Amino acid sequence: MYKLVLIRHGESTWNLENRFTGWTDVPLTDTGVAQARQAGKLLKEGGWEFDVAYTSVLKRAIWTLWHCLDEMDRTWLPVVKDWRLNERHYGALQGLNKADMAKQYGDEQVLVWRRSYDTPPPALESDDPRGQRQDLRYGQLAAEQIPLTECLKDTVARVLPAWNEVLAPAIKSGQRIVIAAHGNSIRALVKYLDGISDADIVGLNIPNGIPMVYELDAELKPIRRYYLGDAEAAAKAAAAVASQGKA
Amino acid sequence: MYKLVLIRHGESTWNLENRFTGWTDVPLTDTGVAQARQAGKLLKEGGWEFDVAYTSVLKRAIWTLWHCLDEMDRTWLPVVKDWRLNERHYGALQGLNKADMAKQYGDEQVLVWRRSYDTPPPALESDDPRGQRQDLRYGQLAAEQIPLTECLKDTVARVLPAWNEVLAPAIKSGQRIVIAAHGNSIRALVKYLDGISDADIVGLNIPNGIPMVYELDAELKPIRRYYLGDAEAAAKAAAAVASQGKA
Repeated sequence: MYKLVLIRHGESTWNLENRFTGWTDVPLTDTGVAQARQAGKLLKEGGWEFDVAYTSVLKRAIWTLWHCLDEMDRTWLPVVKDWRLNERHYGALQGLNKADMAKQYGDEQVLVWRRSYDTPPPALESDDPRGQRQDLRYGQLAAEQIPLTECLKDTVARVLPAWNEVLAPAIKSGQRIVIAAHGNSIRALVKYLDGISDADIVGLNIPNGIPMVYELDAELKPIRRYYLGDAEAAAKAAAAVASQGKA
Repeated sequence: MYKLVLIRHGESTWNLENRFTGWTDVPLTDTGVAQARQAGKLLKEGGWEFDVAYTSVLKRAIWTLWHCLDEMDRTWLPVVKDWRLNERHYGALQGLNKADMAKQYGDEQVLVWRRSYDTPPPALESDDPRGQRQDLRYGQLAAEQIPLTECLKDTVARVLPAWNEVLAPAIKSGQRIVIAAHGNSIRALVKYLDGISDADIVGLNIPNGIPMVYELDAELKPIRRYYLGDAEAAAKAAAAVASQGKA
């Protein structure tokens, strides 16, 4: 049996301001740092060991991993940063307030933007300064690989190659891995691993900074999925995520 | 022409306590964090860009790099951690106070331990709890690769393979690299690159947290070496390092 640990980054400044973030590279709040360190404490107390850690190229996930590894006294572990683990791109909504948008367009429209499987938010113009096509960190990518918006289906389509090419082979080779990522890149993985339908994935919310454990069989089929620590606290935190898009 | 940037980690808790550190994995002080961030500011102000960063497997160098990259808004850069960039192993002196040792054994003996090219300090016993043979981070190494003490000559002997196998090929392939490392792993590189004699290397001291730039020709021969920022401050900081081992 294999184990896999997934951690959504701690609270970011735009989580706190209730703004759509996507690929915008915002830092953790002090609460977010504390969540990351708490995740590390839980992993350390549980005796978890890893061989390699993965994260996105966004600092809220990277710093979450760094604080978590430091708390485990494992800063020396190799860390691989992969843009395909980035948050879903939120298109022209990036930077806007979720509740303001709900007032303006209604809760239902915002829920569609936040959670519809195959309807993306309005796209950024390719020259919008909120876009990433001039960003050095994506300099190795073709312009068309850098999204202007994404629905979850689009996110699944770029996360899965990372799973198939990098993460799954690492796990099968016996490497114990931890992934610090984002609400929607983790939802994309969970949808795939658990075979959740396009309709049911709308109801899945990932809390910040709580390690999620997968137990996987030899074919990497899930046996069990659970949060480390206080299950009730994890459920409450997930419910809070669900309510962010209400007016 | 190529450029290479080397940064000795910021002040660690054992720098502050004036203790021999070696492979002991101690954290940065608040001053050390500030030095690391100041190094990042200098690099950012100078418009420096890197393709990949290297560091040791010791947290004072790793955190120095992390803070430096954060200040540059380049947390997303790939980071490679290589044990061969570790500080010189200080053997049975690890944990002991430099000034206490000078009182006990004399300034001259401490200078020999600190700076002699080919006389190592007394070795740790292989089962000494201050040793690293049970440390997971060195689990891939044969026991005899994990030192029980080192003179600078020994450090050169393990740093040079990292230079020849990893760093030099990266630079020659056009990658712009930054290395966050340690007083003696940097002295080992400088000795090699500048062709400094075994006798003269005794007088070379590396200040904490100040980026050192090498300009290198096509064969990686040094054209120029200088510190970024205030040259006088760098000279003072290096002189302070030199005086640490006095009673």
